[in-house]
Amino acid sequence: MNVGVCYFPEHWPRERWQTDLEQMTEAGIEYVRMGEFSWSRLEPEPDALDFEWLETVVDGLAERGMKAVLCTPTATPPKWLVDRHPEILQEEPDGTVRAFGGRRHYCFNSEAYHEQTERIVSALAERFAEHPAVVGWQTDNEFGCHGTLRCYCEDCADAFREWLRDKYGDVETLNEAWGTSFWSQHHTDFEEIDPPRHTAADHHPSRRLDYHRFSSDSVVEYNRLQAALLRSVNDDWFVTHNFMVSFTPLNPFDVGSDLDFAAWDVYPTGFPQTTPGTADTDELRVGNPDQLGFNHDLYRCAAPGEFWVMEQQPGEINWPPITTQPADGAMRLWAHHAVAHGAAVVSYFRWRRCLEGQEQYHSGLRKRDGSADRGYHDASVAAAEFEALTSGDVDTPVALLLDYDSLWALDEQPMSPSFNYWEHIQTYYSALRGRGVDVDIVPPSDDLSTYDAVIAPTLYLSDTELASSLSEYVERGGSLLLTMRSGEKDRSNKLHPTTPPGPFADLVGATVEQHESVDGLETMVQYGGETYDYRTWAEWLADEDATIVGEYTTGTGTGRAAITERTVGDGRIVYVGVWPSEDLADALVTDLLQQADVEHTDRLPERVRIAERGDLTWIFNYSSEKITIDTGASFQIGGSTISEYDLAVVEGSSTEITVEHNS
Amino acid sequence: MNVGVCYFPEHWPRERWQTDLEQMTEAGIEYVRMGEFSWSRLEPEPDALDFEWLETVVDGLAERGMKAVLCTPTATPPKWLVDRHPEILQEEPDGTVRAFGGRRHYCFNSEAYHEQTERIVSALAERFAEHPAVVGWQTDNEFGCHGTLRCYCEDCADAFREWLRDKYGDVETLNEAWGTSFWSQHHTDFEEIDPPRHTAADHHPSRRLDYHRFSSDSVVEYNRLQAALLRSVNDDWFVTHNFMVSFTPLNPFDVGSDLDFAAWDVYPTGFPQTTPGTADTDELRVGNPDQLGFNHDLYRCAAPGEFWVMEQQPGEINWPPITTQPADGAMRLWAHHAVAHGAAVVSYFRWRRCLEGQEQYHSGLRKRDGSADRGYHDASVAAAEFEALTSGDVDTPVALLLDYDSLWALDEQPMSPSFNYWEHIQTYYSALRGRGVDVDIVPPSDDLSTYDAVIAPTLYLSDTELASSLSEYVERGGSLLLTMRSGEKDRSNKLHPTTPPGPFADLVGATVEQHESVDGLETMVQYGGETYDYRTWAEWLADEDATIVGEYTTGTGTGRAAITERTVGDGRIVYVGVWPSEDLADALVTDLLQQADVEHTDRLPERVRIAERGDLTWIFNYSSEKITIDTGASFQIGGSTISEYDLAVVEGSSTEITVEHNS
Amino acid sequence: MNVGVCYFPEHWPRERWQTDLEQMTEAGIEYVRMGEFSWSRLEPEPDALDFEWLETVVDGLAERGMKAVLCTPTATPPKWLVDRHPEILQEEPDGTVRAFGGRRHYCFNSEAYHEQTERIVSALAERFAEHPAVVGWQTDNEFGCHGTLRCYCEDCADAFREWLRDKYGDVETLNEAWGTSFWSQHHTDFEEIDPPRHTAADHHPSRRLDYHRFSSDSVVEYNRLQAALLRSVNDDWFVTHNFMVSFTPLNPFDVGSDLDFAAWDVYPTGFPQTTPGTADTDELRVGNPDQLGFNHDLYRCAAPGEFWVMEQQPGEINWPPITTQPADGAMRLWAHHAVAHGAAVVSYFRWRRCLEGQEQYHSGLRKRDGSADRGYHDASVAAAEFEALTSGDVDTPVALLLDYDSLWALDEQPMSPSFNYWEHIQTYYSALRGRGVDVDIVPPSDDLSTYDAVIAPTLYLSDTELASSLSEYVERGGSLLLTMRSGEKDRSNKLHPTTPPGPFADLVGATVEQHESVDGLETMVQYGGETYDYRTWAEWLADEDATIVGEYTTGTGTGRAAITERTVGDGRIVYVGVWPSEDLADALVTDLLQQADVEHTDRLPERVRIAERGDLTWIFNYSSEKITIDTGASFQIGGSTISEYDLAVVEGSSTEITVEHNS
Repeated sequence: MNVGVCYFPEHWPRERWQTDLEQMTEAGIEYVRMGEFSWSRLEPEPDALDFEWLETVVDGLAERGMKAVLCTPTATPPKWLVDRHPEILQEEPDGTVRAFGGRRHYCFNSEAYHEQTERIVSALAERFAEHPAVVGWQTDNEFGCHGTLRCYCEDCADAFREWLRDKYGDVETLNEAWGTSFWSQHHTDFEEIDPPRHTAADHHPSRRLDYHRFSSDSVVEYNRLQAALLRSVNDDWFVTHNFMVSFTPLNPFDVGSDLDFAAWDVYPTGFPQTTPGTADTDELRVGNPDQLGFNHDLYRCAAPGEFWVMEQQPGEINWPPITTQPADGAMRLWAHHAVAHGAAVVSYFRWRRCLEGQEQYHSGLRKRDGSADRGYHDASVAAAEFEALTSGDVDTPVALLLDYDSLWALDEQPMSPSFNYWEHIQTYYSALRGRGVDVDIVPPSDDLSTYDAVIAPTLYLSDTELASSLSEYVERGGSLLLTMRSGEKDRSNKLHPTTPPGPFADLVGATVEQHESVDGLETMVQYGGETYDYRTWAEWLADEDATIVGEYTTGTGTGRAAITERTVGDGRIVYVGVWPSEDLADALVTDLLQQADVEHTDRLPERVRIAERGDLTWIFNYSSEKITIDTGASFQIGGSTISEYDLAVVEGSSTEITVEHNS
Repeated sequence: MNVGVCYFPEHWPRERWQTDLEQMTEAGIEYVRMGEFSWSRLEPEPDALDFEWLETVVDGLAERGMKAVLCTPTATPPKWLVDRHPEILQEEPDGTVRAFGGRRHYCFNSEAYHEQTERIVSALAERFAEHPAVVGWQTDNEFGCHGTLRCYCEDCADAFREWLRDKYGDVETLNEAWGTSFWSQHHTDFEEIDPPRHTAADHHPSRRLDYHRFSSDSVVEYNRLQAALLRSVNDDWFVTHNFMVSFTPLNPFDVGSDLDFAAWDVYPTGFPQTTPGTADTDELRVGNPDQLGFNHDLYRCAAPGEFWVMEQQPGEINWPPITTQPADGAMRLWAHHAVAHGAAVVSYFRWRRCLEGQEQYHSGLRKRDGSADRGYHDASVAAAEFEALTSGDVDTPVALLLDYDSLWALDEQPMSPSFNYWEHIQTYYSALRGRGVDVDIVPPSDDLSTYDAVIAPTLYLSDTELASSLSEYVERGGSLLLTMRSGEKDRSNKLHPTTPPGPFADLVGATVEQHESVDGLETMVQYGGETYDYRTWAEWLADEDATIVGEYTTGTGTGRAAITERTVGDGRIVYVGVWPSEDLADALVTDLLQQADVEHTDRLPERVRIAERGDLTWIFNYSSEKITIDTGASFQIGGSTISEYDLAVVEGSSTEITVEHNS
Repeated sequence: MNVGVCYFPEHWPRERWQTDLEQMTEAGIEYVRMGEFSWSRLEPEPDALDFEWLETVVDGLAERGMKAVLCTPTATPPKWLVDRHPEILQEEPDGTVRAFGGRRHYCFNSEAYHEQTERIVSALAERFAEHPAVVGWQTDNEFGCHGTLRCYCEDCADAFREWLRDKYGDVETLNEAWGTSFWSQHHTDFEEIDPPRHTAADHHPSRRLDYHRFSSDSVVEYNRLQAALLRSVNDDWFVTHNFMVSFTPLNPFDVGSDLDFAAWDVYPTGFPQTTPGTADTDELRVGNPDQLGFNHDLYRCAAPGEFWVMEQQPGEINWPPITTQPADGAMRLWAHHAVAHGAAVVSYFRWRRCLEGQEQYHSGLRKRDGSADRGYHDASVAAAEFEALTSGDVDTPVALLLDYDSLWALDEQPMSPSFNYWEHIQTYYSALRGRGVDVDIVPPSDDLSTYDAVIAPTLYLSDTELASSLSEYVERGGSLLLTMRSGEKDRSNKLHPTTPPGPFADLVGATVEQHESVDGLETMVQYGGETYDYRTWAEWLADEDATIVGEYTTGTGTGRAAITERTVGDGRIVYVGVWPSEDLADALVTDLLQQADVEHTDRLPERVRIAERGDLTWIFNYSSEKITIDTGASFQIGGSTISEYDLAVVEGSSTEITVEHNS
């Protein structure tokens, strides 16, 4: 539970550095991240390396007992390098070059760039190999930001063919796996296969899925190259990377296997504006607590160690459409939220507002003139509070399964304008959080035996191995909730030849007779004696061994089964054939928790969330209405009344807490 | 009145074919269409032809007394062919190549592709030349789907120049025809003229129109090449093509002149979703009956013989945004609808849901596991019903004129955000259908003398020849309704030098003083003592020889004439200067029918339609409300109460029928 | 106060010219503009010049005492020229060529095109050097129309590097000015610097700003080339150019320094439709009076002489989405509006509707058949009225500052979906016009000493020199209103290192503690005892020497200062930290006028405007409701009741007038 900051000494005169480091010490900052966009300062001209300036700052940190997190500078190769190796630039599906001028202007599969990467990373690592203040490295920066994860250039074409050769061995195996009889797509040689470039009609979904896997794997390889270089120089260093919120095209579990821990970048007032015009006042002031919690939990699980927040929003930011001031105290609220979900370090981005370049409208802990900004105050308070709190582990009785292959496949064939994988999984996440339950977010291949209950929303791609492991989990007493569109497809993105949920049908004891998307239609379903709304998708279930517990009451499917339940061995499996409304999700989840003997709170007010770590429980009020806490536990921070956008910490368990709105 | 199915044996193991063919027989299927995307199975490697598999299936059909409709496989050249002849790929207006990966990845003007086409089509035709089960061919598949009708590559540039040379002879004639004094577009040589590629400002409308004609003609030529090859091998075969719904860039009358009959592909729940978010519940369940009827009538008229439905939606489909389940019985409803409008065959697409490729979310008559799906039941019922019904001709007292040149010209210069040629013509179509009147949809150049009344919406491009023939039609007793924007332009898409309706002014007896588009304005007009709304377009008419029968009551044009009428010889001409609301269209059309002595029903309830063929009359209820029929005629199918989305058939004329809602 | 027309003799047969010229004379037309798109008629084939036809028409004008305004034909090079010099075509940021087919298909930095320009302009100028009817020239036509002001081709890349070399001398100076430490953008040589082509992430704002300056300067150079050629042939000729409404990418003050006077093209019913669907009925019939007034005032100030309306909408036009008929009398209303704001000539576009090409749906004073259209009547009436009115100067007590550098910089970083520089400046313009105050629109570098009050909305880019000159203005008794986002950036588009308003902070006596964009939030502010709404942007001000006169009453900033005021020397400075609602703008402006002793009217009804020129005052009613004028002055045109969309002219001052709605 430490505090860090992202610092760009290259933006400021040398004379200022001393003052900056002193002010960091005063704020209780321990970690200083540097260097991720500094290549043109580290190597102002070809082969003219200049690391002295960076070393000077790192020395300064050492003197003050602070630690340096250095970054490889590969996110922004200098223009002179691009001009010498123009082939490192990426290409759009239509062949347009993504030119120099912003950032992330390189292809992950460029051999020329791999060489340049080795050169600069090795040189940097060697220079700082023995420096006592350097504790670890961030590789590159936000892999894939600005739509750069997937590239369609010739280097990628070559690498994709190689990737396919490795995977399939011979082209007939690929033809079989993809199913290339359709639309005459049979290939006679791997050399025929291009990236999915601009076409008139849709691409083959199996080709797409493999391209998405290949693209994610290309980043995994590229990160591994960097991690290996760094570790070969000093094996004590940690290696991490700063991931992005609910980021579709990169599998962080795969990258995470080469990291000591994962980090991510937290911009709460920006995230809800991804779809412009939908954010409400609370979201514009403090964000959506479940969006933050979900990603904290995801990145906590994505790599072995405790996760970091590498970049924490410090005030107003530049990139969302609406650049509101966060509410008073919001920066402290967010830091506590991360810590409650298990963060080891919260590092603010950035130290000081930058006078130049693309991010001038991004605030820092310090203003443009060097004076303290709103975030500096919040950060200092939080740092002092963290000092007084004991650390501990996050204990999670429930797992939520997240499968990137399914995400990529569904992203190509959503089959409804409103189907969004992230939103669907978050429906269940919010239902769990609305009952104060802590949760891990893990891939389906993980060992699930430690969890009392598992929620598996849309296990779209599947095989018998996965079906067996889930069956075993249930038989041994697990409670499993499986949802719509599970078991549709095989690992190659072809339909299973059996009726969905395909490999899961035996476990579920029911099959899907029909499915439909239902946007714009009346959508009601009955469950547990109550009538609920649902959205987006409906499956008409045929029970074989299962009990029907939910039924359609509107539409062409009226009277058909929507939700089934079945006892298997010592456990229970529920299958949900719709995308539930919030109320239905709450009913489903509380029934699941009860079945699994998982303790939970009363349903929490909207935008009020609870998280437990070690002996402490945090209560977060992300709403503009005051709340009152009823608990026997003792308050470490705050008291029984929590103001708008504020928090409290008690010693004790979340289940001892009752929350009431004072509206 | 037969039933068919589209079958892809190449998607299934050889062992399954027998079962499939047996189940087809059981369902009453007579025609099986095959092969349209099978090139890479027919020629897995360059020059390694393999037709055996297809022949095996055709043999199987012969054994069971079914007939094969084979397709030329040119819609999807294999990748090895594309790699050998990359110049066959199309290009966007900005030069981007439309790459391999979907379908329709070839240019209609590629000489290399013409050669390849001749090679594969000849080989296929010769192999099946004597086969007794093969009764005819479908050329290619859905020409122009996915925006591929117009291409902008160098082959097209050359072919366009050639087309212009043929049309104009010398370049000064072209300069004169187009009017190239405007914006300095005078050409000194045909070689100067490019396809209308990406420009900053709009292209010259005359260049555009000729490019659209050239593009449609390129497909006509390409289809003719195939038809001639097929007929040269076996002149008993029929040749057809499967057209698409209200498809703008291809003139089916021109293609139709090389076909024995036209076919089209019917997807009722998808069509209303072309503009996302506008379809209502009924449309999402059964579609829009007038959209279906209009296209049935169009394709019945597009070629000499009785039309086919080549692809009939069998259940839920993959390509619209919302993939609803059709209502119970919808597949039977649609099959009857086609038959009532004169279809000879209704062929379902597809036999069985495909496990692989882009259309996995398209249902079939059989499910993925081979069991019967909802559509199979519907199709079997319809097939049995057709057996019992007598066939006959569709008798049409009224013609609606459809002019593709005008459509293309207006598509470039709509002059209002809401002007859409198809929607406008359908306003009148719906008004006719709302009175139970059967209608032909024909080009203005057709012989109209057999029709009692003719509706000519927006005869935008015109010449004195057309004006003479329409005048003659009226003088000899015809009733003609001509509408706004008629006579604006000459055949080259230049304005006529005379006031609109230009060549029709003498016939109409009135001219257009001013026009305006009126979106967002108050729009009311008086006609026959009633006040009606109108939309999109208004013309202020100056009467010369005509009688004013409609007048504006709002806006800057208040008090000006909007609709005129004139008796000429033994007939009458009405000119309508607005786009009428539904009620005004009904009033105009019933007045026209009365004048022309055409019998009609009372105004039918919304979404209830009637069609007459031979001695039979069908009543279709496309609404979710029960209706009651009052008639003396005898019911062949159904009875006097028709449930939601159901139908009845009586022996007798449509005019003996009265329909009431039981709401 | 003369009348002109735009004429295209090349569109009509030679036999017609005589008739056209006679009808122009009858309508009171004095100036005839010709030739701007006639290159392919002036040079039908390479080097085959044919000016005879144009000379014949100019001779005809001379015979009738009319004057010719000739145009250089460079906006539309012929296709044969493009084929010989394809490098003259422009390129999009993604490298796509902007092909031949529309107009403006040349790059301003093409050396080949500069040569061709010199050739054709010299030849034309020499041919008409001595012609008595030719009084002046329009260079080219609407520079930059259709998004052609900025080009990204290799010629532009070379010219941009040259421009940067000239500006910065050495590349380190550029690195310093732009701030290229950010995202590793340090350059080692000018040759490295490309135009801002397609990138994944945003471009550096300093590079963008310089590219916008360079692009505008490229046009200034190109225009200067033409102006110099013309003047070298006949120094008595005037040289002008026809600018476009509120046109972002070109600085007309810079172009204006090479012109004798500025002209602009006025299409009132089109302008409000720039954002489709927002125009109301009045705007669709007569436009927005303040949009017209603003541009009249801007172009009056953009060059030394009295401005012209070079193209005046004559009736319905082709390019906006909705092509309404203007209200009865609208063409006369607009002509008077221009004259009241100081126009020397109002020239209608075009003489006669053209039968061919892209603008067939653009009306003229004469219809397609040559007969008089609605505009001809209006134009004739206006011409006769102008004869009877005395001319005079526009006297402007107030200046509104318009800074193109700030506009370009803000266009790249609006930081709110609703921030629009033009709309913001027009908020203040409308407030001034709503009080009957005449206003100049000038760059901040102008001498302001003659103005009683100055409004400076968002002086975004600034330096100490500008701050000094404004301070001096205030100290000497000026009243200055400065607004939000002033003093944010330096001239290189970097942030000032000091707190905003940066260089203006001393003058204002307050600084900006925080800013935020506020779209979707509740936004209220208190000023002068009243509560007002505001929009888009809020700054929390810290007063140092200033008095707080406005304060936030909603949101996170509640209680913070929003507006300050300070007396400095003999003058006063007000700083407004929000984008005011109309009512707040009125309150701020009337307080400013009172402080500056500027006389003004009562607040005018919406869409009613007053303008004074010499001894005359015009009252314009752009609303559909009748108004009544209360005045002692004598009516020259009209009377005390003014109908919808009509006007009156009185002899006397605007401040003697009171307007009332008769609703």
